[in-house]
Amino acid sequence: MRNIKLTIAYDGTAYRGWQSQKNGKTVQEDIQNAITRVFGGRHVLYGASRTDAGVHAKGQVANFKTNSKIPLANVPAALNSIISSDIVIKKAEEVPAEFHARFLARSKKYRYCIFNSKNRDPFLERYSFRVSYFLDIPLMQKEALCLRGKHDFRSFQAKDKRERSSIRTIYSVSVKKKGKTVTIELEGDGFLYNMVRNIAGTLIDIGRGYLPPGSVPSIMKARDRTKAGPTAPAKGLFLVDVRY
Amino acid sequence: MRNIKLTIAYDGTAYRGWQSQKNGKTVQEDIQNAITRVFGGRHVLYGASRTDAGVHAKGQVANFKTNSKIPLANVPAALNSIISSDIVIKKAEEVPAEFHARFLARSKKYRYCIFNSKNRDPFLERYSFRVSYFLDIPLMQKEALCLRGKHDFRSFQAKDKRERSSIRTIYSVSVKKKGKTVTIELEGDGFLYNMVRNIAGTLIDIGRGYLPPGSVPSIMKARDRTKAGPTAPAKGLFLVDVRY
Repeated sequence: MRNIKLTIAYDGTAYRGWQSQKNGKTVQEDIQNAITRVFGGRHVLYGASRTDAGVHAKGQVANFKTNSKIPLANVPAALNSIISSDIVIKKAEEVPAEFHARFLARSKKYRYCIFNSKNRDPFLERYSFRVSYFLDIPLMQKEALCLRGKHDFRSFQAKDKRERSSIRTIYSVSVKKKGKTVTIELEGDGFLYNMVRNIAGTLIDIGRGYLPPGSVPSIMKARDRTKAGPTAPAKGLFLVDVRY
Repeated sequence: MRNIKLTIAYDGTAYRGWQSQKNGKTVQEDIQNAITRVFGGRHVLYGASRTDAGVHAKGQVANFKTNSKIPLANVPAALNSIISSDIVIKKAEEVPAEFHARFLARSKKYRYCIFNSKNRDPFLERYSFRVSYFLDIPLMQKEALCLRGKHDFRSFQAKDKRERSSIRTIYSVSVKKKGKTVTIELEGDGFLYNMVRNIAGTLIDIGRGYLPPGSVPSIMKARDRTKAGPTAPAKGLFLVDVRY
């Protein structure tokens, strides 16, 4: 059996997220259907991150097993010719049998995009959350740095989606502004359900002065979702990169 | 009667173009419906350019007449709160009764976007035409300059959509590359049906060496659509600006 690793980009706007489900189209299902047409048989595609409805990816990673002898170099073009133009297979690699996109991921990087403008824009708003208030970027950056390291992130975890442990390690974090676009980037060993969107919503509330400076450490300490800011919309979130 | 001029941006992907028609949603119809809800009654919205299915706009201009006394400053937000997020009313102005967005337009500027890359990208390809061949940009720019001035553009006019005259004046033209994006910009007193997309398709064929240098003048001279290159896809075309 060959084990094939795919690197995938997608515009998640029209999808009910990564993971196959009974109702609505999903990225996993669409790619699995294309794999069936190219490779024959049924395959399960394991994705590194089960991105939510409306979330995008620049570098999702997934793997599947097959007996087919199709040359690797032809795999991306063969799949792309079948799948919707919202999904692009960027790369296909052959990996050892034990490789698993989800369980062996060492780190993931997410980017949250804010369009900081009083004026609307149909092109930018498809891929970002428009915030019309003034945002204090240096303050957001300072608060964001408090997230670095190993912490209990329960305050940033969706209330109804508890995992065994809410302790995660954030390796790097940044808040940058370029033109009217503010990007929040977080790289870590793993993320709780809605964690990046809850962090983004909290940093926005700090940046616009709705939450006081010093809020991030006190929110983390509280281990209480109600102390953090709102969940920022899915359309501004991108899975950028997964490392192994 | 007040005469209201709107400046409008839209992502045309999901629309059958600007102009109202029996089947499928159009930008004009969607905005007219919003105007009815905000201003009451039925209104006809005259657009400067009847952009085709899939074509986008950063600065479409349209006008309509109304007896309503709603303050101008509230008009964009009122309409935007109703219309799909694919359409944004950027500005509303009160103009003299004789203003007509289509008949009084002095010039229009269009931009055609090419994503010049061997690799696909779901985000860029939504708003550009991917060309994987090497493109000779200085040559394309040199050929494009031959379009400047008053010419008979019949060779670049869709065969089945003849207008009284195929003579138009191009005021400025440019071909620029930034990163992997090549943009062709044309400003002129008017454009024939599919003219910008036919010019873009021709310049691409010249840039990749499929048509020889010097093709633009000889194509124009021929006054024959079959001599020009193919029609580039709608998704790369933007109406940028209309002047009065």
